[in-house]
Amino acid sequence: MDYVCPLDWRYGSEEMRNIFRVENIVRKYVEVERALVCTLEELGIAEKGCCEKVMKAEVKPEEVYEMERKIGHDIAGLAFLLEEKSGCRFVHYGATSYDIVDTTWALLIRDALKIIKRRVIELLEDLIDKARKYADLVMIGRTHGQHALPITLGFKFANYVYEISRGLEILMYAEKMIVRGKMSGAVGTMAAWEGRGLEVEKRTLEKLGLEPHAISTQVAPRDGFAFLISAIAIIGSQLDRLALEIRELSRPEIGEMYEAFERVGSSAMPHKANPVTSEKVSGLAKMLRGLIIPALENIPLWHERDLTNSSCERILIPHAFLILDEMLISMIKVLKNLAINEKNIKKNLELLRNFTLTEMVMNILIKKGISRRRAHEMLRRITRRYVEGKSLQEALLEDEEISKILTREEIESIRPENYLGNYRELIERAIQYALEVIERARKDLKTLPS
Amino acid sequence: MDYVCPLDWRYGSEEMRNIFRVENIVRKYVEVERALVCTLEELGIAEKGCCEKVMKAEVKPEEVYEMERKIGHDIAGLAFLLEEKSGCRFVHYGATSYDIVDTTWALLIRDALKIIKRRVIELLEDLIDKARKYADLVMIGRTHGQHALPITLGFKFANYVYEISRGLEILMYAEKMIVRGKMSGAVGTMAAWEGRGLEVEKRTLEKLGLEPHAISTQVAPRDGFAFLISAIAIIGSQLDRLALEIRELSRPEIGEMYEAFERVGSSAMPHKANPVTSEKVSGLAKMLRGLIIPALENIPLWHERDLTNSSCERILIPHAFLILDEMLISMIKVLKNLAINEKNIKKNLELLRNFTLTEMVMNILIKKGISRRRAHEMLRRITRRYVEGKSLQEALLEDEEISKILTREEIESIRPENYLGNYRELIERAIQYALEVIERARKDLKTLPS
Amino acid sequence: MDYVCPLDWRYGSEEMRNIFRVENIVRKYVEVERALVCTLEELGIAEKGCCEKVMKAEVKPEEVYEMERKIGHDIAGLAFLLEEKSGCRFVHYGATSYDIVDTTWALLIRDALKIIKRRVIELLEDLIDKARKYADLVMIGRTHGQHALPITLGFKFANYVYEISRGLEILMYAEKMIVRGKMSGAVGTMAAWEGRGLEVEKRTLEKLGLEPHAISTQVAPRDGFAFLISAIAIIGSQLDRLALEIRELSRPEIGEMYEAFERVGSSAMPHKANPVTSEKVSGLAKMLRGLIIPALENIPLWHERDLTNSSCERILIPHAFLILDEMLISMIKVLKNLAINEKNIKKNLELLRNFTLTEMVMNILIKKGISRRRAHEMLRRITRRYVEGKSLQEALLEDEEISKILTREEIESIRPENYLGNYRELIERAIQYALEVIERARKDLKTLPS
Amino acid sequence: MDYVCPLDWRYGSEEMRNIFRVENIVRKYVEVERALVCTLEELGIAEKGCCEKVMKAEVKPEEVYEMERKIGHDIAGLAFLLEEKSGCRFVHYGATSYDIVDTTWALLIRDALKIIKRRVIELLEDLIDKARKYADLVMIGRTHGQHALPITLGFKFANYVYEISRGLEILMYAEKMIVRGKMSGAVGTMAAWEGRGLEVEKRTLEKLGLEPHAISTQVAPRDGFAFLISAIAIIGSQLDRLALEIRELSRPEIGEMYEAFERVGSSAMPHKANPVTSEKVSGLAKMLRGLIIPALENIPLWHERDLTNSSCERILIPHAFLILDEMLISMIKVLKNLAINEKNIKKNLELLRNFTLTEMVMNILIKKGISRRRAHEMLRRITRRYVEGKSLQEALLEDEEISKILTREEIESIRPENYLGNYRELIERAIQYALEVIERARKDLKTLPS
Repeated sequence: MDYVCPLDWRYGSEEMRNIFRVENIVRKYVEVERALVCTLEELGIAEKGCCEKVMKAEVKPEEVYEMERKIGHDIAGLAFLLEEKSGCRFVHYGATSYDIVDTTWALLIRDALKIIKRRVIELLEDLIDKARKYADLVMIGRTHGQHALPITLGFKFANYVYEISRGLEILMYAEKMIVRGKMSGAVGTMAAWEGRGLEVEKRTLEKLGLEPHAISTQVAPRDGFAFLISAIAIIGSQLDRLALEIRELSRPEIGEMYEAFERVGSSAMPHKANPVTSEKVSGLAKMLRGLIIPALENIPLWHERDLTNSSCERILIPHAFLILDEMLISMIKVLKNLAINEKNIKKNLELLRNFTLTEMVMNILIKKGISRRRAHEMLRRITRRYVEGKSLQEALLEDEEISKILTREEIESIRPENYLGNYRELIERAIQYALEVIERARKDLKTLPS
Repeated sequence: MDYVCPLDWRYGSEEMRNIFRVENIVRKYVEVERALVCTLEELGIAEKGCCEKVMKAEVKPEEVYEMERKIGHDIAGLAFLLEEKSGCRFVHYGATSYDIVDTTWALLIRDALKIIKRRVIELLEDLIDKARKYADLVMIGRTHGQHALPITLGFKFANYVYEISRGLEILMYAEKMIVRGKMSGAVGTMAAWEGRGLEVEKRTLEKLGLEPHAISTQVAPRDGFAFLISAIAIIGSQLDRLALEIRELSRPEIGEMYEAFERVGSSAMPHKANPVTSEKVSGLAKMLRGLIIPALENIPLWHERDLTNSSCERILIPHAFLILDEMLISMIKVLKNLAINEKNIKKNLELLRNFTLTEMVMNILIKKGISRRRAHEMLRRITRRYVEGKSLQEALLEDEEISKILTREEIESIRPENYLGNYRELIERAIQYALEVIERARKDLKTLPS
Repeated sequence: MDYVCPLDWRYGSEEMRNIFRVENIVRKYVEVERALVCTLEELGIAEKGCCEKVMKAEVKPEEVYEMERKIGHDIAGLAFLLEEKSGCRFVHYGATSYDIVDTTWALLIRDALKIIKRRVIELLEDLIDKARKYADLVMIGRTHGQHALPITLGFKFANYVYEISRGLEILMYAEKMIVRGKMSGAVGTMAAWEGRGLEVEKRTLEKLGLEPHAISTQVAPRDGFAFLISAIAIIGSQLDRLALEIRELSRPEIGEMYEAFERVGSSAMPHKANPVTSEKVSGLAKMLRGLIIPALENIPLWHERDLTNSSCERILIPHAFLILDEMLISMIKVLKNLAINEKNIKKNLELLRNFTLTEMVMNILIKKGISRRRAHEMLRRITRRYVEGKSLQEALLEDEEISKILTREEIESIRPENYLGNYRELIERAIQYALEVIERARKDLKTLPS
Repeated sequence: MDYVCPLDWRYGSEEMRNIFRVENIVRKYVEVERALVCTLEELGIAEKGCCEKVMKAEVKPEEVYEMERKIGHDIAGLAFLLEEKSGCRFVHYGATSYDIVDTTWALLIRDALKIIKRRVIELLEDLIDKARKYADLVMIGRTHGQHALPITLGFKFANYVYEISRGLEILMYAEKMIVRGKMSGAVGTMAAWEGRGLEVEKRTLEKLGLEPHAISTQVAPRDGFAFLISAIAIIGSQLDRLALEIRELSRPEIGEMYEAFERVGSSAMPHKANPVTSEKVSGLAKMLRGLIIPALENIPLWHERDLTNSSCERILIPHAFLILDEMLISMIKVLKNLAINEKNIKKNLELLRNFTLTEMVMNILIKKGISRRRAHEMLRRITRRYVEGKSLQEALLEDEEISKILTREEIESIRPENYLGNYRELIERAIQYALEVIERARKDLKTLPS
């Protein structure tokens, strides 16, 4: 209870927190230093036995940060400790701090992305199920918050299936550009490794399962981080849209869906089913949108680098992942516990007595040879009868001009379920796209070393 | 070492962390609940003895958050515990969660602002000292990174004195609008307090030393938070400018100032005096700029409020304060340890052999009756001699046309120290402004209850 | 129709556009140059007659920008042209471009703020009218989008009165810090004016009705611009909240208010009353939130300035003002044409059959000596009867335990109109605050030179 | 000269402006409406001859916007005019405004991206040339603004080659997701087209050379726009880094490169070579970073859409493209006119008398069997001799302990040109990557319809 950051206890999973804890970061630093030393031994740059000795040496985070307090530098402290404990003087040989830090970021981000991708897939699978389950449940489509034309609930979910799959696709593009190792020395030239730098880089990164950047300065290019945070903020904003949908549709006047969790809604009004989990998702999305700014500002570093990305990224990256993690967990839970009120869906669909279907009528009129202008006039006249409490059908039947053009049968066929177009094929097309993206995402999950 | 957020251990002071720790937040919640119960007793709404009982009841954060896990709501859990322990059933009577939360934010922010204001004043005082100490140390002024006209180092510092005082002033404006209590019930109407809501509000907030908002919904208006974060981001960006100044002037080719800390500069290049503390400040400034986005997005809440500000602000506010805290601490330390290299200042001042003073020459020519166009032509001719290695004086003396217009004495007087204008009065004017702002800030510090 | 920027024709008023048109900017540049020359003549620095000659010289924007194309600099071109045409060689004497540009920004911003303040006042006055007109119209208050406790429509409007008055207050703080002249030469030292710089500054700026900055570099400090854009973005987000309120309440299921303009709603669905003007306001608010980022990034300029603020501000400032202008005009129009549907307000108020008033019941129970826990249990039991279609009153009357504690009369008094607390005083308190802010804003409007 | 937006005349190319001018937008609207009508005729939905008539009908932007003023809707106005003029009542049949608008955005963005990609390629080719031309020109590498290890100027350029190629790659990813047509009616179900919606969509979009989205609401998903603006902001920030490099290296104390344009530098100091074009690039980059915020906020639209993206995108998209356009044009011009001062590069390289090469020494010592700790101590001792004015070589030769370990020959080999590692292979690797990306970008350029 001595935390100041809610991401240290309140938001995000333990699993994700474990990735970005100081102790895991130090563990990864050590892993990278070891991969380098072992490579140097393989190439005959470091003396025989170094690798084994360094593999055995243990360094604790507290030791590193005590060293940092003394010498003002964490990686220098780590290298010192590791050399001390292993007795191998080729620890960190030829490397710069950010060879370790950026390669560690790649490892941590890869691990964090596994969790994220797993959760996005879980969310997508639930959305796909719902898109199919409710494929034919007719409801009103809403634009501007107003009633537009009918859709089905499955069609609504299918749009989220498509959008969030796109988010996943963008995230995988970002992954390709950010999850790369950096092993190239103080200014990126690999100066210390006697002309064998490319081999040092290749072998060290292979041990860690990473591809290198084509070139680098003291650091990997920061555009990758900006791309990653953009992708995270995009997915976050997509989840925000889904959360917003649920929040709106659970208004008591609408009542089409609601979060069906057991809990106290608010301290003062214990009877309400407040969509608080969805609201949390919308709230956290705002944080993610803000995080793209420092990520972009980190791109223009000075020359072969300045340090201004460092403090910034220490906060930025764990926060972006933990916030998205919390949002995904929450959204998955909301979907699992989402109650659908079909009665209210039906009630709302009929609220405007089919006057939402004037487009359908207009199209029939046009098809029958009426000009758009004349059709418009007729419909304006018809629409005015809405306020008298008539249904669209009644108004049409009672209209002298129109009832001559349209048969009773035609008028009676003007119903939401007859104006759904190609919703089924579209739902399926969205799902097929999603499945294809999910399959690619799964392959990525498999091919990565554990 | 199990933290994921650097603000929980690495950045920011313990003092600031203590304000935003979960346990302190809960302590303040209890303080607000108590102030309300005692007020209710005073007004005869709650039964006699309630106040005393609630003052004695202790609630621990862990208890609150265990309740939250059960019932899904922290303040409801707290109210329940407090009632349970005190046996007073008027705990939280008529209040809504955000009466407690927003009033607590006001208390926490007031405390946090005390620390911030103290640090800004400390920084300003050092800058004022330096503005005076180096009032007459002539150096080159730089625009576009190029040499412009001479200034003095004190004049440079005085500009920071002015700017950061302005930042402090903006912060105090923000304080006036954000540090206000909220005690008005579930939708802001004070419905539960039998028509005596205004008195409940007044007495409760007086106990806490707070003024109320004129009106509110379930929550205080969020513009205040946005204004606060803007002010914090503005000060952060001003510190960024100061940090940037130091980072640039400590380039080895310039060498006019540098961070004179003892430490290991980097793991690979132990000999360099990297301006890492200033770089940290510039890095953290980027984070602050991003935080204004969620703060602004929190303004448009739905109707009498939605909950989307909640998750967002739990992260946003402590982070903004802790980041600024770290930046101020760092900047104070940098200034205290700032080495000034007068030799290099002089060397750079002379680097362009006074060719930076062509404006001075032109003005003399114009004063002597030469048209601007003709003066320009002369100076263009003169400037071309720069590449021959001449000084401005030499070029002028050797120029047939100009040497007829200007006397040798006049030409020799064309020196940086003679082209400093009203720098002394301007420095003093900046300092006077700063002192006036500081005095107001100090008064605020005094008048607040501890 | 050859525009690419919608602010050049579609959004914002002609009045506001006139301020930021190139030709007006050049006109102001000339005004500032003239004020300087006349001051220089007064002080005997420039020759007699200069002022008059410069007052007569006319410079056209096209000429300036043709010069810019030749010499790469607009202000240099202007100064050259003005000297040429006036024959006074003291044009621009001792000044730097940004003495002209920043002082011009101050003049333009002051003019733009007059328009903005006038519109905010107009908006506030309408909101005040509505707050009073609908002071007693009871409606449901909504939190989380759910029904909370009753408020009145006037109370709802009064919250906007308060918030937007706060926005105006913040804007006036910003005005105090940004509307300041800058007349201090190339690096801020006033070097050229023979020690009489402070007088040059004072007299020149007095002619323009401006106060100076205490000190400056080549430019005025950029925090003022960031503060201004923050204030604009805050007001923009407040308008967004008002627009959002209207958009939500005009959902057909809610139908409490709607934009009552005459127009074609959408190309495909001519019958709907889409809240498109409010939607435009919400859309433009997003642009404003983004504009704070470049404004903040402009603060950390290099040394005595770099030029990176220049291109950025040329876009930023006119866009911020024109966008806010359009938003205010739109919001004023929406409010003027806002239809209130009292029938639907009543219908929604009764939607949950007073079950929203359980807080009221609980408080009565507590007042009668029941513990919060027992009261909670009773109410949970009562609440369950909601689904049976009962009203709260029925459920209470039929409950054996409660009907023993509460009299029929007490139960029947549990009605929205009896649970509105101090709404009337609160409305009035909000209005009083607004009137006080408006009065100050009006005074500002008067005291400024036309 | 009656513009308020600098993008209407000052920044960006005519070519890019032509894409986003109102008249071109209307032209594209008409193109999309025509493609739809012709498809409808092909499929027998519209009557024969409609296509031909609509192809002949001309609509002028002014007419559209006059209609908009009357009926409040631009696309409705356009459809009305087009029907009126063609006499075909199937104009816009079954479509919604955003079928036209979003498909038009896709067309405009595709065209705008062609220009952008062409410019990025031009920039990359110049950078590649420079990377090769200066492959072996040794210079100091800088980290923290301090001297680090040597690099070559070609190596520096190669890093930009790599980064900006990555930017181009990200842009092409974004293109794949945003340049898609939308033809699916008012809520995305294709309701009006008698079950043949998929064919209507396919044929209409094929005529325009576009792929469809898998599914849509009333609008295409907004994540694509956010991704696009992210990509633009990332490239913008990469150009900012390049501009920053040039601005820093053209400081007079450094003088390694400068913008070699002919122009008046500033009104007051005509002699300076201010890097104003690079400064403009850095300034505009700030604007781009801000634009990502509204792009992200546009993702969470309500249900089947709300209109809040509309006003926002009208500003956002043209501005993003025109700003990036100006930045690319400027950067290309800067690079073409970039003067390299090899003398100063050499001078700076030698500034610290090879004390930057201590890492090299340390590595030799470690290779010789010295422990890192002992090597550190030796080097600390050596480093202290820097202040005596010694070169590293002298200090090493004079050091008793070290001169026993290292031979004179070894010490003399400690020179920058011997510590450049694999710079040549790395330059080539970066160029190969760039060429591969360029080739893909070129293919895209070819395969698009003109």
